[in-house]
Amino acid sequence: MNNFIYSIPTTAYFGKGQIKVLGETIKAHGGSRVLLAYGGGSIKKNGIYDAIIEQFEKAGLAHVELSGIQPNPRIESAEEGIELYCKNNCDFILAVAGGSTLDACKAIAAGVKYDGPVGDLFVGESGLSDIRAAAPLATILTMAGTGSEMDMGAVITVGEDHKKKVLMHPLVNPRFSILDPEYTYTVLEYHSMAGVADILCHLMEQYFTPDVGAKVQDRMNEGVMKVVLEDAPKILANPKDYDARANIMWASSMALAGFQFLIGKPTSPFPLHGMGHELSSRYDMTQGVTLALLTPAWMRHTMSAAPEHLPLFARFARNVLDIHEEDDAKAAEEAVRQLQEFYSAIKMPANLREAGVKEEDLEIIAGKAVENGNLGILSPIGKVEVLQILRTAFIG
Amino acid sequence: MNNFIYSIPTTAYFGKGQIKVLGETIKAHGGSRVLLAYGGGSIKKNGIYDAIIEQFEKAGLAHVELSGIQPNPRIESAEEGIELYCKNNCDFILAVAGGSTLDACKAIAAGVKYDGPVGDLFVGESGLSDIRAAAPLATILTMAGTGSEMDMGAVITVGEDHKKKVLMHPLVNPRFSILDPEYTYTVLEYHSMAGVADILCHLMEQYFTPDVGAKVQDRMNEGVMKVVLEDAPKILANPKDYDARANIMWASSMALAGFQFLIGKPTSPFPLHGMGHELSSRYDMTQGVTLALLTPAWMRHTMSAAPEHLPLFARFARNVLDIHEEDDAKAAEEAVRQLQEFYSAIKMPANLREAGVKEEDLEIIAGKAVENGNLGILSPIGKVEVLQILRTAFIG
Repeated sequence: MNNFIYSIPTTAYFGKGQIKVLGETIKAHGGSRVLLAYGGGSIKKNGIYDAIIEQFEKAGLAHVELSGIQPNPRIESAEEGIELYCKNNCDFILAVAGGSTLDACKAIAAGVKYDGPVGDLFVGESGLSDIRAAAPLATILTMAGTGSEMDMGAVITVGEDHKKKVLMHPLVNPRFSILDPEYTYTVLEYHSMAGVADILCHLMEQYFTPDVGAKVQDRMNEGVMKVVLEDAPKILANPKDYDARANIMWASSMALAGFQFLIGKPTSPFPLHGMGHELSSRYDMTQGVTLALLTPAWMRHTMSAAPEHLPLFARFARNVLDIHEEDDAKAAEEAVRQLQEFYSAIKMPANLREAGVKEEDLEIIAGKAVENGNLGILSPIGKVEVLQILRTAFIG
Repeated sequence: MNNFIYSIPTTAYFGKGQIKVLGETIKAHGGSRVLLAYGGGSIKKNGIYDAIIEQFEKAGLAHVELSGIQPNPRIESAEEGIELYCKNNCDFILAVAGGSTLDACKAIAAGVKYDGPVGDLFVGESGLSDIRAAAPLATILTMAGTGSEMDMGAVITVGEDHKKKVLMHPLVNPRFSILDPEYTYTVLEYHSMAGVADILCHLMEQYFTPDVGAKVQDRMNEGVMKVVLEDAPKILANPKDYDARANIMWASSMALAGFQFLIGKPTSPFPLHGMGHELSSRYDMTQGVTLALLTPAWMRHTMSAAPEHLPLFARFARNVLDIHEEDDAKAAEEAVRQLQEFYSAIKMPANLREAGVKEEDLEIIAGKAVENGNLGILSPIGKVEVLQILRTAFIG
């Protein structure tokens, strides 16, 4: 096992009705004037907005609003938020959000304490940003998937070519997150399932790293993956299945906070996210969908390019999917087949073509993906390899 | 799943050589005059003491020493520490310890900030103590088992009848813990394996609670139990197996911090610890040994007294021990048999008689055990039931 530091800066208030702690907890963190950020306004229909305002009033908190933050948020949204925060002398940020609004708010939190353009604080796909201070931030999660509610990362789209850049620092970890599974009841099926694909990918990208004997982390990861595979179809069958929603929501948080990320294993460059970002930027595809499409292709590529890691894929097959097959190669191949079946069962597109990707773009996408930095973890991945993975994913 | 708050106040510095952060990290937590507490003095033979003093000197920290804290620590040790801390104007406590010294130090941390006898702060087997402030505390773990390095609990022996009392509050969570698996290389085989039994019991006592669909927690728990069962024998075979020592050490911490304790499941009254305390008080037995002896008897009792929970034991059999048996009762019974085999393989005594317990004491022990508060979680446990469990464990 590698050395590591285990530090969990975010407190989660998990379960139905936990919004009751909102006002007092913001005050306990020094907030009095809140920048309230949200996306498309669905929170005004499902009662969450009213519950927040009630909490603000009870606790005597003032607020200003930043609404309309789009999926795959752009840096301009963060800049707008920074201006609003400063002009109104805010001292706290509340993101009511899936991953996108929350990511924009992390940029706002860092940007309001930085003398210069917030874009300076973004790096490529890995490494810590040079952040010295950040405004306190909390979140009320409205969609499970990105894990942003418990982690230190934010992904923002920058520039005319829609480049995705990463900001990463423990100072932008939310101070607290309110995780109420009932708030996800009304998330569209497609987005719920894209979130599931995202969670599964976070777990897999940290699982498929060179084996260093970190068995506690790997076994815990296997356990969470099993739950995701078992409970996602239950949400399809009944969107108001509380325990299934709760398990998927907690899996989302656990995948990036608590026992996996940077804990005693080689640091994953998140190759699937690296490639997926280029697809979601170019076609405005939901991130989770890109991951569902790329994962089987990446697995097949890696199993072939780095057969020395076949035991890792076979272990996944046996421990997560209960595949009883002694031959490693056959077990691994069967695992990929079953994963594809799972993605199909949760209604992901069958391949990149079906998802609207154009074959003639693949080479450009491959070129841009490798500009984001290293994508290799079990085997080297350059432009040639990305293109091969994209071509496999194109036909599915 | 039940509602919960997830908050991890302790930072872990895990891995070989992590002592290098000691001096600066104490300073970062405001320490300048350290009460250095340890047990029997083995740290002077294995180099840990010298490494600590070097860190103190580099960082310019003064210190006073409290040595000789015994296993199953008594409240008098804590009182001595409180006096020493106050007389020397200390502002930080460092416990170099397995669980016992650390537990005494948690009592010291709370006691130095309390106007009255520290005994006031101890409660029975559950519930938070009335603690308003505590001195900052850190630990360097020298034996894996109790999980005290990452949790908010301390167990102290009080009075002439050796009553074990519990102090519990997040304010006594260590600010940080240094977990270097190499420090456990020289722990005696018997104590290493008693530690393993303790870890396994912490996991089981949180696993065997009424099923509320908290699958993420349960699956993670199963994963950690699997690792404990797999890696403990590796330590027996080679006490310097780094990865096995690392996995057992991290399992110890994870069992009580991070994903299980008070997280979304019915709160366990830790019935096995409740009964075990009476045995370890009366005979000065190592805690883990009492747990290894009581667990199979408790399982058999509960399976028979509360057959409605058989599916839980059968799930344990299938998911942790890979027992392929469709009948729940048979699967559960086979699990108990395999557990007993495991305890035997890690050289625990076969039964209470072999461990030196006197048959004529069983009734008194049962009476004292139930004085500690509720012990029932899957089925009610009063004096009659404890006596039945003790009698089963007596013959093994």
